[in-house]
Amino acid sequence: MNYMLRNENAIYYECGYSCDNALYLHLGKEAFFITDSRYTLDAEEHVRNADVIIANDLYAKAVELLKHSRVKKVLFDPKEWTVFGFEKLRSETKVHFVPEPDFSHKKRIIKSDAELKIIAKAAKLGAKAFKHLAKTFNEEGFGKDEYALTHTAKSVLGGFGKYDLSFDPIVAVNANAAKPHATPTKKKLKEGDLLLVDAGLKYKRYCSDRTRTVFAEQGFVFDTNQHFAKKKIQKAYDLVRKAHDHAIMHARSGMKAKEVDALTRDIIERGGYGEYYVHSTGHGVGLDIHEMPYIASRSDTRIEDGMVYTIEPGIYIPGKFGIRIEDMVAMVDGRAKVL
Amino acid sequence: MNYMLRNENAIYYECGYSCDNALYLHLGKEAFFITDSRYTLDAEEHVRNADVIIANDLYAKAVELLKHSRVKKVLFDPKEWTVFGFEKLRSETKVHFVPEPDFSHKKRIIKSDAELKIIAKAAKLGAKAFKHLAKTFNEEGFGKDEYALTHTAKSVLGGFGKYDLSFDPIVAVNANAAKPHATPTKKKLKEGDLLLVDAGLKYKRYCSDRTRTVFAEQGFVFDTNQHFAKKKIQKAYDLVRKAHDHAIMHARSGMKAKEVDALTRDIIERGGYGEYYVHSTGHGVGLDIHEMPYIASRSDTRIEDGMVYTIEPGIYIPGKFGIRIEDMVAMVDGRAKVL
Repeated sequence: MNYMLRNENAIYYECGYSCDNALYLHLGKEAFFITDSRYTLDAEEHVRNADVIIANDLYAKAVELLKHSRVKKVLFDPKEWTVFGFEKLRSETKVHFVPEPDFSHKKRIIKSDAELKIIAKAAKLGAKAFKHLAKTFNEEGFGKDEYALTHTAKSVLGGFGKYDLSFDPIVAVNANAAKPHATPTKKKLKEGDLLLVDAGLKYKRYCSDRTRTVFAEQGFVFDTNQHFAKKKIQKAYDLVRKAHDHAIMHARSGMKAKEVDALTRDIIERGGYGEYYVHSTGHGVGLDIHEMPYIASRSDTRIEDGMVYTIEPGIYIPGKFGIRIEDMVAMVDGRAKVL
Repeated sequence: MNYMLRNENAIYYECGYSCDNALYLHLGKEAFFITDSRYTLDAEEHVRNADVIIANDLYAKAVELLKHSRVKKVLFDPKEWTVFGFEKLRSETKVHFVPEPDFSHKKRIIKSDAELKIIAKAAKLGAKAFKHLAKTFNEEGFGKDEYALTHTAKSVLGGFGKYDLSFDPIVAVNANAAKPHATPTKKKLKEGDLLLVDAGLKYKRYCSDRTRTVFAEQGFVFDTNQHFAKKKIQKAYDLVRKAHDHAIMHARSGMKAKEVDALTRDIIERGGYGEYYVHSTGHGVGLDIHEMPYIASRSDTRIEDGMVYTIEPGIYIPGKFGIRIEDMVAMVDGRAKVL
């Protein structure tokens, strides 16, 4: 099979190295990692199973290699190629380029044992960072606004420069937590507030992802055992937690993704909060923070051992509060193992 | 003129608001800002001169609007459209889509007075952050590795959560500074080292960009007046500084970009370090950290009042050290004004 890649993580998956300007060609039994001279040393040291080729114009070099190889058909993911780059190749070769959306994500949906170990380590480091973050917030978080709290979350999750982040952390207080993708405001954290933190770090390029919603009183920790002062919040929280725990307990290899989604959705709907659960149950996690499988109400994807995804039900009451509890699971021996 | 945009900053430039999932159509006298429901409130509050349209599938909505408008020709930048997105529009309409690379960057090459004010403020905040950073490094930077120093630079430049960064800061010690795009290593900063910092922050979405190379002794500051212990380093430093100052002094509106480039390059070449000056003199700065004009040896772009760009000559001795001094300038009344 012949294929070509432009996405950094897709390329990393093939050859164990990547950078922000690379083009990967897999042509029959040959493979080429093309990059510019800034990355010569690193690429030559780390790229496996491909020839490293340095070029000023990556597209021109790819055209040259495609012509020389005489291949007739090459797969590509139209989501990872710009019209600009693709047209350079299309207009200058006679190759038949076959669009295959999510080509690399499909290859990566089942994680190898080596990948599972790395992801488990990423999740463990992420959990440890949440512990550290609770300590920091208790010591100096009260009275700070969401901008400052988000900055602290970045610092702690990133191990003060040691790790890259999976994404910009979400740190949201009370009503701002009602936005599933909240951005910071000048809202300050005070005792008795609801505090939602959604954050993750990367270990050896693989992402972790975790969300906790807590009653922020002095001494709070980021566990799932929370006691809110307001009954309405506690009721919604208990329902989210029940949905979260239930899905982890009952997800099985062989189910369709939509059946796993239903494990959380049915509980929240039966509890009367269905309209406030405005997103899917979860998403795959790996080199990308969002990848396959998507645990969504319309997905027929078959869940299998080796898949890694999040379980993250939520309830969002606009203008009031939002709750989400998220953990990563790996399918092992037919069941969901929390990472 | 009809055009369509997908890039976040290109869209912001048109209507004063943008987000990470938006599609902008300018069709005759009408304009449409299409986004998903996560951004409804923000878009309706901030978008100017365009109708806000909420849709699950941005491409399907764009097809609908294109068909309804009956326009025949629409410009687009092939660098900001994926093959996937573009094909959805191309295959479902009869519109003639005309590729216009760098369409938005070309529109943005001359800054308005309002933009110049914002960029000047960004640059000022950036300079202030460098002062703060020098203080922090003096107090607690010695003995820390580049990862930790980079983390500190991120925190300080970002105003501890107040500002977004223009890019991940470069903090490089001695030989690592010889890589123009250095990534952090475990190299620790000690007194007497050469320290290069390249960093910037965003103010109202506009970027700042600045580089200083200093002799890191106790009490150092990030100014251009540096005294290195090693004569070889001092010699190269003085040459870079001379090139930097000379270009700022002699750049004029009406020159070609390559003539501005020659202002730095000639001095470094005559000093015998031409082969170690491995990049262009500078790049435009605005909503994007790299935009037009590019101050490069082959660029015929005519420099005009209202353009903003960097002057950043450098000398890089592989395995030994690297030096770069960078400031932003705006062309005002025919001359380069340092921001």
